[in-house]
Amino acid sequence: MAFLNDNYLKLKAGYLFPEIGRRVKAFCEANPEAAQRLIRCGIGDVTEPLPSAVIAVLHKAVDEMGARETFKGYGPEQGYDWLRAAIAKDDYRDRGLDVADDEVFVSDGSKCDCGSILDILGSKNKIAISDPVYPVYVDTNVMAGHTGEANEAGAYAKIVYLPCRPSNGFIPEPPKRDVDVIYLCSPNNPTGAAATRPQLEAWVKYALEHKAIILFDAAYEAYISDPTLPRSIYEVSGARECAVEFRSFSKNGGFTGLRCAFTVVPKSLLAQTKAGEFKPLHSLWQRRMTTKFNGVSYVVQRAAEAVYSPEGKKQVRALIEHYMGNAAVLRAGAKKAGLKVFGGVNAPYIWVRTPKGVTSWQAFDKILGEANVVMTPGSGFGSKGEGYFRISAFNSRANAEEVARRLQALSW
Amino acid sequence: MAFLNDNYLKLKAGYLFPEIGRRVKAFCEANPEAAQRLIRCGIGDVTEPLPSAVIAVLHKAVDEMGARETFKGYGPEQGYDWLRAAIAKDDYRDRGLDVADDEVFVSDGSKCDCGSILDILGSKNKIAISDPVYPVYVDTNVMAGHTGEANEAGAYAKIVYLPCRPSNGFIPEPPKRDVDVIYLCSPNNPTGAAATRPQLEAWVKYALEHKAIILFDAAYEAYISDPTLPRSIYEVSGARECAVEFRSFSKNGGFTGLRCAFTVVPKSLLAQTKAGEFKPLHSLWQRRMTTKFNGVSYVVQRAAEAVYSPEGKKQVRALIEHYMGNAAVLRAGAKKAGLKVFGGVNAPYIWVRTPKGVTSWQAFDKILGEANVVMTPGSGFGSKGEGYFRISAFNSRANAEEVARRLQALSW
Repeated sequence: MAFLNDNYLKLKAGYLFPEIGRRVKAFCEANPEAAQRLIRCGIGDVTEPLPSAVIAVLHKAVDEMGARETFKGYGPEQGYDWLRAAIAKDDYRDRGLDVADDEVFVSDGSKCDCGSILDILGSKNKIAISDPVYPVYVDTNVMAGHTGEANEAGAYAKIVYLPCRPSNGFIPEPPKRDVDVIYLCSPNNPTGAAATRPQLEAWVKYALEHKAIILFDAAYEAYISDPTLPRSIYEVSGARECAVEFRSFSKNGGFTGLRCAFTVVPKSLLAQTKAGEFKPLHSLWQRRMTTKFNGVSYVVQRAAEAVYSPEGKKQVRALIEHYMGNAAVLRAGAKKAGLKVFGGVNAPYIWVRTPKGVTSWQAFDKILGEANVVMTPGSGFGSKGEGYFRISAFNSRANAEEVARRLQALSW
Repeated sequence: MAFLNDNYLKLKAGYLFPEIGRRVKAFCEANPEAAQRLIRCGIGDVTEPLPSAVIAVLHKAVDEMGARETFKGYGPEQGYDWLRAAIAKDDYRDRGLDVADDEVFVSDGSKCDCGSILDILGSKNKIAISDPVYPVYVDTNVMAGHTGEANEAGAYAKIVYLPCRPSNGFIPEPPKRDVDVIYLCSPNNPTGAAATRPQLEAWVKYALEHKAIILFDAAYEAYISDPTLPRSIYEVSGARECAVEFRSFSKNGGFTGLRCAFTVVPKSLLAQTKAGEFKPLHSLWQRRMTTKFNGVSYVVQRAAEAVYSPEGKKQVRALIEHYMGNAAVLRAGAKKAGLKVFGGVNAPYIWVRTPKGVTSWQAFDKILGEANVVMTPGSGFGSKGEGYFRISAFNSRANAEEVARRLQALSW
């Protein structure tokens, strides 16, 4: 008699973005004219085409796959050496950070890795997660059986929620109590906040003292413009002993539809066995990747490598500047509309307080219905996201300007 | 205090193919001249370039990614509708099999899916696995904590091993005892055996009677030439109520380096909750894919679609014929060398009995050292694989012919 994983039955409603998709689809079907002017600022998906340096390399790699002499079959599951080396050098060692080539594991997405990392961790760890937060951190822990049931507000028993508020700049402080695994995301999705060096130092200190592990999601590091803000957790001394870092080509090179990311697992990062021994997580992750994954498409890995070429870097820089230009327009528009605005300076997300008495989903429905703009309701990111909505800066400039105008035309 | 997943510590040695890689590398470094004439028939990796119909579509899709109007960001996690529809129609409905478009989930590999499927199943299921077998089935169950420790022969406690022998044509019979989850692979990796209709009917009958689930790996179905052999588990009546099917573009279109596969989860397939209710696994898998995966690269999905075009089909057919031509050459060569040979007729693998008193790894080392050919030792696939080795037919014709010659020149 086969049993299913009952933990899945604890999950509340749908995953946030499919739920938004359903509402938007229903609205568009009921209002075909309004649907014509719909602008999507919901899901954080890039809109600009891939850099031409990436396109050129993709064509070349496709041609290689079409000739027997250059055809590539299975590659190393952890990624080709040349890509791991390019990443370790360019993103880390050239910036003075100690990361070896074989501490970089190439994958098809940070979303996948953020979920899969739980495979190598024990089942009894106390999990701490920011609130609001990228829903994948919570949902994958629910699926893995690390939580109890959810309450009315959608908060799961056994998870330690770390509230993010204007008063802490939306970056949580380490808790007073013991936790074992901590999810941090900076620059933050959804709040657009970026952690300062002292904030990350406090977390690394906490993790070292408590022998805890920080899962550091830096998918948006390319959006940091303030030179005093850390772009990697490894800029903080001691982080190699307590942190895994997730990065992605989705939001710098625009690879959301192409699929490539990577995770850094330092060899000096240890975790405890049931018997009380400390062992490196690196070899477990290596085993996980070789056994449960078969590597990223060769053509896509070549594309990722091109992001590090001189041309690729320049083109990626231009993409970031484009999106951050949008962020400035949207911030200004929301402010002029009388709304209280956070983020959008070192991150492509603007986090907006809803007018008093208006819930996140009410704001979502009103903005969809009256301005024909898709936002993301803050409550979808956790109970402390209630009373906010997120505007994504991933768009054309014309759309960003139009959204800024439409926000100002709304009356609440 | 963060804990790791102790189950990983139960895993024996390395994953088979990395272990082979290490031995081959050491041999080549020690024998640079022999390394020049090395022929690899080890890992089941295709060698011929992608079909030209696929290459043409890849270039077109890359161009789409380079223009704002046609650029594709995040796609549906389960795969684009047009690909799911092409698969369901061509691989199933056109062959009279009842599979709906949304029962097809597109992924980046069958290896990934075979491991990930355990996410949605309960932790107390009794697992039955053929021996010998593709190591991923066993290792992922070890990682998930479904087994005890391994014994000397590498067999894990709590797993029900189903012996595959010449006497059952290397397709196991259903056991007398209760099991809940059954892995079947046909055409089989590593033995090259293909299950007959009566054999699959016996398994479906067993699964329905025991409310068990069959995980049916059909990654090599394209290699079946005997029209009486089932190419899908769904050719057997009742399978929609008890079976998941895994398929891949790796071994038909040659996508091992491009990465695309799919899994069919029928909506009529139920499993039990702890409370004793029966619920469809389809919605759990849907939730798993949307939460822990971000879809296959757009350009790769277009490439997979091209496999179903008239040109694509013709070119894939030619690839299969090429590899099966190799299989015939290798079978004949091994026979002439006085070896006992199985498989290689409806599958691209030839399963060879080692001469009396020679272990699998001894045969591997001898063939590597004296014939400079890489095989796969049968014992790497399980204790019942001891005394066999696998020859892969994925090669050029010239190489297959040369390997056949070298096998005949060996004296045991």
